[in-house]
Amino acid sequence: MSTPFDTILMTGAAGRLGTELRRGLKPLARKLRLADVTEIADLAPNEDAVTFDLADEAAVMAAVEGVDAIVHFGGAPLERPWQEVLDSNIRGSYHIYEAARKHGVKRVVYASSVHAIGYHRLTDQIDAEAPHRPDSLYGLSKCFVEDLGRLYWDKFGIESVMLRIFSSFPEPADRRMLWSWLSFEDCNRLVSAALTAPSVGFTISFGMSDNRVKPVDNRLAGHLGYQPQDNTEAFRAGVEARLPRPDGTAPAVQCLGGWFVDLGHPDDEAQK
Amino acid sequence: MSTPFDTILMTGAAGRLGTELRRGLKPLARKLRLADVTEIADLAPNEDAVTFDLADEAAVMAAVEGVDAIVHFGGAPLERPWQEVLDSNIRGSYHIYEAARKHGVKRVVYASSVHAIGYHRLTDQIDAEAPHRPDSLYGLSKCFVEDLGRLYWDKFGIESVMLRIFSSFPEPADRRMLWSWLSFEDCNRLVSAALTAPSVGFTISFGMSDNRVKPVDNRLAGHLGYQPQDNTEAFRAGVEARLPRPDGTAPAVQCLGGWFVDLGHPDDEAQK
Amino acid sequence: MSTPFDTILMTGAAGRLGTELRRGLKPLARKLRLADVTEIADLAPNEDAVTFDLADEAAVMAAVEGVDAIVHFGGAPLERPWQEVLDSNIRGSYHIYEAARKHGVKRVVYASSVHAIGYHRLTDQIDAEAPHRPDSLYGLSKCFVEDLGRLYWDKFGIESVMLRIFSSFPEPADRRMLWSWLSFEDCNRLVSAALTAPSVGFTISFGMSDNRVKPVDNRLAGHLGYQPQDNTEAFRAGVEARLPRPDGTAPAVQCLGGWFVDLGHPDDEAQK
Amino acid sequence: MSTPFDTILMTGAAGRLGTELRRGLKPLARKLRLADVTEIADLAPNEDAVTFDLADEAAVMAAVEGVDAIVHFGGAPLERPWQEVLDSNIRGSYHIYEAARKHGVKRVVYASSVHAIGYHRLTDQIDAEAPHRPDSLYGLSKCFVEDLGRLYWDKFGIESVMLRIFSSFPEPADRRMLWSWLSFEDCNRLVSAALTAPSVGFTISFGMSDNRVKPVDNRLAGHLGYQPQDNTEAFRAGVEARLPRPDGTAPAVQCLGGWFVDLGHPDDEAQK
Amino acid sequence: MSTPFDTILMTGAAGRLGTELRRGLKPLARKLRLADVTEIADLAPNEDAVTFDLADEAAVMAAVEGVDAIVHFGGAPLERPWQEVLDSNIRGSYHIYEAARKHGVKRVVYASSVHAIGYHRLTDQIDAEAPHRPDSLYGLSKCFVEDLGRLYWDKFGIESVMLRIFSSFPEPADRRMLWSWLSFEDCNRLVSAALTAPSVGFTISFGMSDNRVKPVDNRLAGHLGYQPQDNTEAFRAGVEARLPRPDGTAPAVQCLGGWFVDLGHPDDEAQK
Amino acid sequence: MSTPFDTILMTGAAGRLGTELRRGLKPLARKLRLADVTEIADLAPNEDAVTFDLADEAAVMAAVEGVDAIVHFGGAPLERPWQEVLDSNIRGSYHIYEAARKHGVKRVVYASSVHAIGYHRLTDQIDAEAPHRPDSLYGLSKCFVEDLGRLYWDKFGIESVMLRIFSSFPEPADRRMLWSWLSFEDCNRLVSAALTAPSVGFTISFGMSDNRVKPVDNRLAGHLGYQPQDNTEAFRAGVEARLPRPDGTAPAVQCLGGWFVDLGHPDDEAQK
Repeated sequence: MSTPFDTILMTGAAGRLGTELRRGLKPLARKLRLADVTEIADLAPNEDAVTFDLADEAAVMAAVEGVDAIVHFGGAPLERPWQEVLDSNIRGSYHIYEAARKHGVKRVVYASSVHAIGYHRLTDQIDAEAPHRPDSLYGLSKCFVEDLGRLYWDKFGIESVMLRIFSSFPEPADRRMLWSWLSFEDCNRLVSAALTAPSVGFTISFGMSDNRVKPVDNRLAGHLGYQPQDNTEAFRAGVEARLPRPDGTAPAVQCLGGWFVDLGHPDDEAQK
Repeated sequence: MSTPFDTILMTGAAGRLGTELRRGLKPLARKLRLADVTEIADLAPNEDAVTFDLADEAAVMAAVEGVDAIVHFGGAPLERPWQEVLDSNIRGSYHIYEAARKHGVKRVVYASSVHAIGYHRLTDQIDAEAPHRPDSLYGLSKCFVEDLGRLYWDKFGIESVMLRIFSSFPEPADRRMLWSWLSFEDCNRLVSAALTAPSVGFTISFGMSDNRVKPVDNRLAGHLGYQPQDNTEAFRAGVEARLPRPDGTAPAVQCLGGWFVDLGHPDDEAQK
Repeated sequence: MSTPFDTILMTGAAGRLGTELRRGLKPLARKLRLADVTEIADLAPNEDAVTFDLADEAAVMAAVEGVDAIVHFGGAPLERPWQEVLDSNIRGSYHIYEAARKHGVKRVVYASSVHAIGYHRLTDQIDAEAPHRPDSLYGLSKCFVEDLGRLYWDKFGIESVMLRIFSSFPEPADRRMLWSWLSFEDCNRLVSAALTAPSVGFTISFGMSDNRVKPVDNRLAGHLGYQPQDNTEAFRAGVEARLPRPDGTAPAVQCLGGWFVDLGHPDDEAQK
Repeated sequence: MSTPFDTILMTGAAGRLGTELRRGLKPLARKLRLADVTEIADLAPNEDAVTFDLADEAAVMAAVEGVDAIVHFGGAPLERPWQEVLDSNIRGSYHIYEAARKHGVKRVVYASSVHAIGYHRLTDQIDAEAPHRPDSLYGLSKCFVEDLGRLYWDKFGIESVMLRIFSSFPEPADRRMLWSWLSFEDCNRLVSAALTAPSVGFTISFGMSDNRVKPVDNRLAGHLGYQPQDNTEAFRAGVEARLPRPDGTAPAVQCLGGWFVDLGHPDDEAQK
Repeated sequence: MSTPFDTILMTGAAGRLGTELRRGLKPLARKLRLADVTEIADLAPNEDAVTFDLADEAAVMAAVEGVDAIVHFGGAPLERPWQEVLDSNIRGSYHIYEAARKHGVKRVVYASSVHAIGYHRLTDQIDAEAPHRPDSLYGLSKCFVEDLGRLYWDKFGIESVMLRIFSSFPEPADRRMLWSWLSFEDCNRLVSAALTAPSVGFTISFGMSDNRVKPVDNRLAGHLGYQPQDNTEAFRAGVEARLPRPDGTAPAVQCLGGWFVDLGHPDDEAQK
Repeated sequence: MSTPFDTILMTGAAGRLGTELRRGLKPLARKLRLADVTEIADLAPNEDAVTFDLADEAAVMAAVEGVDAIVHFGGAPLERPWQEVLDSNIRGSYHIYEAARKHGVKRVVYASSVHAIGYHRLTDQIDAEAPHRPDSLYGLSKCFVEDLGRLYWDKFGIESVMLRIFSSFPEPADRRMLWSWLSFEDCNRLVSAALTAPSVGFTISFGMSDNRVKPVDNRLAGHLGYQPQDNTEAFRAGVEARLPRPDGTAPAVQCLGGWFVDLGHPDDEAQK
């Protein structure tokens, strides 16, 4: 049977989500090209690998050649000092989009983050048209890449789906993840939907499982066809027994970004 | 057991959807009056038939006498030259509403169409308050009838439900119908809901099955109580195998109206 | 000095507003082509005239040849029986747009009307995105032409400005016109702005002078550059002395359409 | 196993819903303190009771001491003369909030009502940001308490959830309840969700079961995590057989408040 | 010359604004009936006076007899202990509306306040549809009366205009009043507009002069026809020289309600 | 007389707008610190100058010491190759905000640009809550700085005003500037308003003079108190005589960004 794509490039392929996506994307392409700054050894027959730093424009350019679609999950996965955020997330993502433009790639799926809108509150029930409110340099870099994708759609006709992933871990690790969790299976469903939806133009989607507490309104991404199948109820009793009921008036509880809103500046931390 | 209505008039009763609706409406009325420009021979005991052209005002007036509700599915079902759209859809629907007014009919359910809003894009995720953007003379006539119904509600107190039907066929015939399909059973559910909802005033509802990819937001019709039971997943593999992945940047893929947005003017075509 | 346009066609040129517009449009075109069903005798050197019924498609087609822009003010100017509304406003306007398409006219300015949205109330403070709520067959035909213009912009790239004129008379004749009045000078300013604004795509603008009581919100037409200079304050004392304070709870006082909302069906009237 | 709360105070504990809530809240607190103007005799081991009138500020103050959360369902449950509404609902609820403030209670869940927004229509499909439109003095008092809760959140940091309960009865008693019904089990789910949601600030939620006809849009309360499990379909045939199809144009059918919109002033009634 | 009204009742006539309104309302009615808890001695020929407490229902009822319209500016004009707010603002205003209902008064103009929405911020740029966010018991009582007026419009057809007055003083007394000031002349213009606008139904309007800094969006009251003529620029230099530049991040500077948001509970204060 | 600020730092002080702002800001601070990559020689007594590149973090840090407010107009003023945009606009602005944070500066006024939202159309009539749609790398960098300012407000309490300047030149140079022009005097008024408004939090304002054609809706910045005094009417005849009427359907005419939307990628250009 033929696959929708011939070759998909996945960045961040050695990361927490990347590993899961190797499995999830398998049915979608004849060939997965796995990219990471860390070498990947355990290649399956449908996979090949390239090892480079996203800050290396030439390497990115080479990796994108011959690719049908890009699943861009690479870069720093949480708050880091400015120079690192700048190199891996801002410059690195710019290299990805430039390579897509030069090599005629038609669609990019990007791992944006809840931290691009982390200062909005659960009670705001924002949708995808709410303004950016980053909660960290990390979140700020996600905002940048969203805007970058918007430019490349408006000017160069490259479609993008920005997945604002909340918390994708093996299981919910704390009280907040009871509403923010995205199971690995649902993450695969979400990325697959974003790759195969008929028309996405420039689309932003929140990325969560079908948890009971819903912190945002994802109706504006209905055309992706993402249907989460998992939720956190099986984990609730365990988490609630282990961790105390939070203070609903604390900023880290009120805000989508959770404890990121309590973080200071990473460069201050770095100096300590 | 008594039925909600005594007599329902259904126009377009010999058409593709009309045939299905004969079955679906049966539990709702003691008598179904079937109207079409084509004669209908296979009448069931609960049915009678009238044969006329919607452009014939006197015939319409006669057909509406003694009716409790009208399910108006008649008229040209796709793009046609102006004169035909004018006669069957604009003038014909005006005759229906005038007859409803003169004979005291309290509710009309109309087969409007996605083509009344065909130039909106999937990524717009419009709801029922979005402005008209017809994609054809056919769609323009649907806009006219929606506004006509609005006038007859505001001025004469006749309730209307405008069903913007997307694609109601035996099964999804192409890639677009994977999101636009309305199964015949769901079409029956939708029309039944529109007829029996407690209060509809002037209501617009999109008409699709519960397909995975959702191109519009139907929350403003929640009071109809329409709950689709079908979807296109069973057909997906077959359709996708048969037809290539579309170019997400083509207008006919981006827009709700599909290939209608690529149509030229029907009178130009007619001259060829 | 050169004018922005070479030839402008104005329909309804013998009507109440048409006469004023002959003066107002003079600086905008080398030649004004005046069209009306009534013959126009007093032609100025920059004018020529054509006499025909808008229902006559061939005549409309001939009149549009060689034209740069159309100011379409022709058709029935108030509530009329259906057949007349159909012929002059619906069919007539269709002929205008078809002629524009066939002869490559790039912009149409249309005299729509408050009666396209007459059932909205002053307290609603609607803007141009509010749904149609016609208050009459006349208003319904205005809705139709607005949607027609939308189609010809989306499909054929013809720009349109829909001017929802409230009450354009020599002076405010009643209490309602103290807020609905559009002076003839402001009407000229409005049409001129609509013709010369840099980019209008499909634009709807309300048409009133700068009266103290503002029944709607016209901010969505800011790109037309219409700046009314007149208002009704000079007429207020006279009107208020002559006519009693209205009952604020009467539909005709609450609704934008005024006494049109109290009208019955024109065909009923015609039969009396 | 530990419970989320140590002691919850429930007012109106002897009322129709209060009785059900005693069962529903049991898993949430070590101790339920039941308050009502009527004495409660059948106490379970986890319950104690206090008997007083909400208009008695000192009694309210005493009852709130040592409480973690308040479920405030007390007060007049339907339209009553002004003095009674004033004493039990306005003054009484003020006493509750004052007691919460003075005793450091962090969250209040209040039985507001559909009658706070009863003049909105089903076709409006309002959400929680729609303005108040009370349909009775009873509804007006609910509006007051909602605003009171808002003040105590903004100024004193006390979280509130305002549950606009539609119709919570053993089963749907009439046609309207086919869409307005809230089963007792779902009522328990809703109150439990409101008590345990991580962050509620000031939240308004509509309270209905998962009925087919949905009269309002509850998406803005997604962060409560309320998932109704019941609906009225099992009762539909019985109700529809027993009661005639309503006139969709009657105010009591169009409006959320139902027959409350037809009520006159209660003090007029009281005098009769 | 005849006046729009025969008799207008003005409550709070001895207050700061009441004194100014006696002058402003003079042209609008043959007779002004001045009501206050304080006796008014200096009556003009067009005035008579009644002295009573708003909490005295019978007295209110008597004062309203024979009145065409009510300008209700009475009650506590700033934060007061609960019992006083309850008696003068909540109960008192209820008496006014009941009297209007019983005596057939058709329009009420009420002095609501910025403190009904005091916790919204300038940067929110709210309009009249924003939810209530009272900043005090005083503000809470204003919310109550707004909802009361809404009920009496929906149920009894009495029109109301709710004027959310910001700061009406002889001149701007502090930095905040540079944007919140309503001159006495503009206050008269606003009340006159509210009384004489053709149709107000239930309308909320913000009440400020045409100051340079605009903290809210008043477009939804355009149908009142209020056109402020004054502003604070003449006072700016004096105020700015006298008072330091405020800290833009202080709640009392960010919020519409100013220093009211810093107030504690008035009953706490009263006990000191 | 004392000034609102002691020392204001202005970056880009040698640029086109910087020169004008030196005059405009003079009344606002005892001392203006002028920063540019180009040396400034003609210092007035109230001015001192610092010369450095914004990419030099240490130099930026030094320049900000002792400053009350920053007017950040430095960086590349139009489309440039990526490396230059990155260094001067992205990295440079990050240095400014970091310096503000470390030196306790409370307010930053930034020269954002129409090019941050250049792909929106005039007919969209966007307001400040519309999503970013950059039309160039230059515009993308403006989006980045807006989000940066948002982060520093939410996390560090530094107020920012983002001025989306349209076209600030000595006079309107082309047809587009007839609506996009910001006179130098109005630019000074705008920056002064942004510096002195009582509370700005994070505010976005469009920057244009009071031109007749209004391409956007600036109501959400009402609290800045910016009142433009200039417009382009005096230049209209000259510009229109010199330049042909534009094609209203061309992207560069439809879009706010003008000819920027027609630009290719600057690095492609750089290679030619």
